[in-house]
Amino acid sequence: MNTGADVVIGRLLAGGVEVCFANPGTSEMHFVAALDHTPAMRAVLCLFEGVATGAADGYARITGTPAATLLHLGPGLANGLANLHNARRAHSPVVNIVGDHATYHKEFDAPLESDIEALARWPEGLVFRPAAADALAVSVDEAITAAAGPPGRVVTVILPADYSWSTAEVPVVTTPEAPMRDDVAADIEPVAELLRTSGPGTALLLGGAATTEAGLIAAARISAAVGARALVETFPARLTRGAGVPPIERLAYLAEQAEQQLSGITHLILVGARSPVAFFAYPGKASGLVPRGTQIQTLEPADLDRLADVLAAPALPPAVQQPPALPSGPLNVANWVQVIGALLPENAVIVDEANTSGVLLPAATATSPRHDVLTLTGGAIGQGLPVAVGAAVAAPDRPVVALQADGSALYTISALWTMARERLDITVVILNNHAYAILQLELARVGSAATGPQSRSLLDLGNPDIDFVALATGFGVPASRASTAEELADQFRVAVAEPGPHLIDAAIPAWG
Amino acid sequence: MNTGADVVIGRLLAGGVEVCFANPGTSEMHFVAALDHTPAMRAVLCLFEGVATGAADGYARITGTPAATLLHLGPGLANGLANLHNARRAHSPVVNIVGDHATYHKEFDAPLESDIEALARWPEGLVFRPAAADALAVSVDEAITAAAGPPGRVVTVILPADYSWSTAEVPVVTTPEAPMRDDVAADIEPVAELLRTSGPGTALLLGGAATTEAGLIAAARISAAVGARALVETFPARLTRGAGVPPIERLAYLAEQAEQQLSGITHLILVGARSPVAFFAYPGKASGLVPRGTQIQTLEPADLDRLADVLAAPALPPAVQQPPALPSGPLNVANWVQVIGALLPENAVIVDEANTSGVLLPAATATSPRHDVLTLTGGAIGQGLPVAVGAAVAAPDRPVVALQADGSALYTISALWTMARERLDITVVILNNHAYAILQLELARVGSAATGPQSRSLLDLGNPDIDFVALATGFGVPASRASTAEELADQFRVAVAEPGPHLIDAAIPAWG
Repeated sequence: MNTGADVVIGRLLAGGVEVCFANPGTSEMHFVAALDHTPAMRAVLCLFEGVATGAADGYARITGTPAATLLHLGPGLANGLANLHNARRAHSPVVNIVGDHATYHKEFDAPLESDIEALARWPEGLVFRPAAADALAVSVDEAITAAAGPPGRVVTVILPADYSWSTAEVPVVTTPEAPMRDDVAADIEPVAELLRTSGPGTALLLGGAATTEAGLIAAARISAAVGARALVETFPARLTRGAGVPPIERLAYLAEQAEQQLSGITHLILVGARSPVAFFAYPGKASGLVPRGTQIQTLEPADLDRLADVLAAPALPPAVQQPPALPSGPLNVANWVQVIGALLPENAVIVDEANTSGVLLPAATATSPRHDVLTLTGGAIGQGLPVAVGAAVAAPDRPVVALQADGSALYTISALWTMARERLDITVVILNNHAYAILQLELARVGSAATGPQSRSLLDLGNPDIDFVALATGFGVPASRASTAEELADQFRVAVAEPGPHLIDAAIPAWG
Repeated sequence: MNTGADVVIGRLLAGGVEVCFANPGTSEMHFVAALDHTPAMRAVLCLFEGVATGAADGYARITGTPAATLLHLGPGLANGLANLHNARRAHSPVVNIVGDHATYHKEFDAPLESDIEALARWPEGLVFRPAAADALAVSVDEAITAAAGPPGRVVTVILPADYSWSTAEVPVVTTPEAPMRDDVAADIEPVAELLRTSGPGTALLLGGAATTEAGLIAAARISAAVGARALVETFPARLTRGAGVPPIERLAYLAEQAEQQLSGITHLILVGARSPVAFFAYPGKASGLVPRGTQIQTLEPADLDRLADVLAAPALPPAVQQPPALPSGPLNVANWVQVIGALLPENAVIVDEANTSGVLLPAATATSPRHDVLTLTGGAIGQGLPVAVGAAVAAPDRPVVALQADGSALYTISALWTMARERLDITVVILNNHAYAILQLELARVGSAATGPQSRSLLDLGNPDIDFVALATGFGVPASRASTAEELADQFRVAVAEPGPHLIDAAIPAWG
């Protein structure tokens, strides 16, 4: 005899969802109990819901398949929303299981009652609320299919407590049919003809599935053959880099720089990317970054390689692996990235929420060993440590390096504990400039000359300084402090060599 | 010349909003800059939005007036929602200022774009989106009036960046008229007649404004005079207790106990409280807690005193202040509350998120010096430390004692840093049982016999144990560890005597 909770977990497993990042409450206790019957579902406890949702995002970016989250009613989902926003922008498939009051209890407006659907829809999410315990299986199946996409998306199954504890029917298992793909090859000749004739006035902007090794190599071939520019979107969900992969430049975060990169183009070919816009509006500056009059075309990432062949673009010589030399002296924004670039292990996953401190990271890691970079896709800070958790669960054989700004780290700092409990192979480097340095920069960019004590105080993370070695120790993660490049190198070597998580609190002065 | 941001802050001040709990981003930089022109607005930096919203709730519970929050677009508001849910249930007035992209930038769907209104409405919130920079003043005025109530509520003003940086008109200041109150006294004679005749079959359930000293004394007089029962709602927003205040029992959290407290009643008089319901549904148990057939009436809290006079209820002898004796030996759920009861300073504010560890707290503090208790009104855990921040900002002359369960503390742990920066007089006692002990209890209550490794692991906060002394140290709060009643007493004495925040990590074994 199965409970509804057993059925939900069974259908998740049948749909290929094998990990559940959980922060349960009372209404999810039957789901928790059912985990004991289904050891194939790995449950990972998170101490805050934003860690669970960010971990599901990181997991999806590595595996391409969804993890589940287990969240407690509306407030639990609310705490997970910011990282679901990032997942939405990454097109990551995520299946939230949100417990709800028993159906007959909802009318009583108990203290935790709220409009769960409104929250679940917010990150462009689809919501599945089964109408009976026997409908749970179909809801979960449909949710997984909807999450998988393409494009991947955030979906939520609302699981009332009474359905969870009732006996529920296990339907005859029919694997849902994969949606039919269009087998007719797209006509890429117009794009090919454009590229043959337009030269450097044309740019390929790569995003989504085009930022893999294959896509980057094809784009580099095309660029070399016809003289077009190639760029990667500003915040790719997953970007392959390092030795053997063409170091295609990313479009800059600062609109001024991005406009420079795009100046003079007349044609823009979007390959899995959206037409670029400024992250924020600034007084007197344009929101769209594409020069007026630019003609925009789109190309499916899957067609990049064929396009390169159609253009008879020669293969490129393999890029050399030549990490930067190890620097020395007090840490600064220029040399810490060289330490990472010099010592990055093979096949690493870099989770990059270094923000202002990381501006020089791409250059320093371009010729490091092959690695993937996961970036802050939606701008909701506090995703770095959770995404690192998910990436490490997804790829236990790969070293994960989380490069993490100090201010952003604090939104989801309890992710460190999950790293410790699960013994995840993650090296966290906190870029600690004791400030919301990006806001110090932005304050000037929006045209404000504020220098008074209240505004300064709101952008400053000193008084008191935050001691990340102590915080990591509190959560059970071995930690050390580095203030010189030599110290960072020594500590980073140890951290990546030893199994389990480590944290390095690196003193990096802010720019300027 | 004023910017829109100047106007917003000016109108907040004119409406009596003098504190802003802030976690700003780029779109709020002009608001931040404007704070330098308006030193009367106190800006308190929080490192996570849930700290800002919880602090606004705590502030409102002490002052009865709203504080502002400053939040960054949809994701920032999302992170603040759980504690706004608690504020909604507490009927606390809160005015959120949520920055948004410039109006002309929204169509570009930049990475941080989202449906802010959907989130703002979720905690039964009202939303004000001004249509032009010149409409900001009216929007803020209307928002403050709506927040103030009665009942107090959560409101949100959406502040587009371009309105914030534009020049805006300061309207002729007309203090909004206070809504006309009904001067006609309610007819309380039917309730009086009921009480004269019904005896112990009638219960007064006190909530909202009835849980002040005046309300509790009047209810106790009535109860003594006519033999009716008196109870306080389970999670009052603010409950006055201690010497001189009748120790009226609270309705229990556990439905089984609450049903016991209400058994045999035939009439229930709701005085600022809602009709009681079970916090969660449990298999085979009723959701409503009031015995079938009970007649329900309501009474305004303001009429309690008059009702006592109408009933000619004699004044009660003043309750004696006689705190419990100091216990000794290893800490447990029974003796730690006696330490608090014995050493509670005069005029304290207790913020109670002790959860299972705090079940015996009310008895142990009934005859302590006068104090107010702020409870977890909405069930969204992670409110204790933020509410303590707000209470301490609101009442700098009162000692604040935050009694905090370990698991719940971790949702908003960075509140400790704000306590340190603002040098708030808060003593945090972490009741550290290394478990989600309430879920261990609830797992059994929902009828589950789960004892497997996955379910046990999801309710356990050990492996590794969390070191709150290290966490507090990391955030700049002096901290110590207590495992005996003597150590807790010694450390608590020091903590309340010294200015500024302190944390005591108290090892309290879970029940059973």
